[in-house]
Amino acid sequence: MKIESKFLIVKDGEKVFGEGPYRLLKSIEELGSINRAAEKFDMSYSKALAIIKKAEDYLGYPLLERVTGGVHGGGSYLTEKGKELVKDYEDFAKEAREAVEEIFKRKFMWK
Amino acid sequence: MKIESKFLIVKDGEKVFGEGPYRLLKSIEELGSINRAAEKFDMSYSKALAIIKKAEDYLGYPLLERVTGGVHGGGSYLTEKGKELVKDYEDFAKEAREAVEEIFKRKFMWK
Repeated sequence: MKIESKFLIVKDGEKVFGEGPYRLLKSIEELGSINRAAEKFDMSYSKALAIIKKAEDYLGYPLLERVTGGVHGGGSYLTEKGKELVKDYEDFAKEAREAVEEIFKRKFMWK
Repeated sequence: MKIESKFLIVKDGEKVFGEGPYRLLKSIEELGSINRAAEKFDMSYSKALAIIKKAEDYLGYPLLERVTGGVHGGGSYLTEKGKELVKDYEDFAKEAREAVEEIFKRKFMWK
């Protein structure tokens, strides 16, 4: 038996951020494109945009910036604040998951 | 902002136990009836039974015992092992939730 954890950041009862938006942002960071990141998760471009937009609205700062034209035809990139959020969420989730596993092992492993 | 945690106990990639089965068992314990507990969650009797049955199969021991007849017309009660599971899950979830909150506050509260 093992334990799986899911975390959800909420504000005024509304989802602000969690594993889904985190993975989406992480993919945009890697692929440099909302479209390609959305494709990876079998998600429409508009759904991906809505997820990011909602997080931005609640957080009060932009997570993505759009670069148009250029040699590579532009793309979407994480803002400094966006990168920081991804990094902080990653650190938090890793530490939280490890803490939960330790508690689970202590309480349940003998079963 | 605050953090919500969901935990899921898995075995061989299959869900064994979590918040749903826990709440269901807890209600059966309080109400003494699968039917009334299922009603409380707007769930069919057969669905409630399937959830319990699946957990029992994976855990390898009975969680409920059925008493028929008697002054109160019988009902369903938690076995000793069932009570223990509910108690252990409750303790685990409480401690795990507190640990996650502490980590979240440390990593995110300044945002």
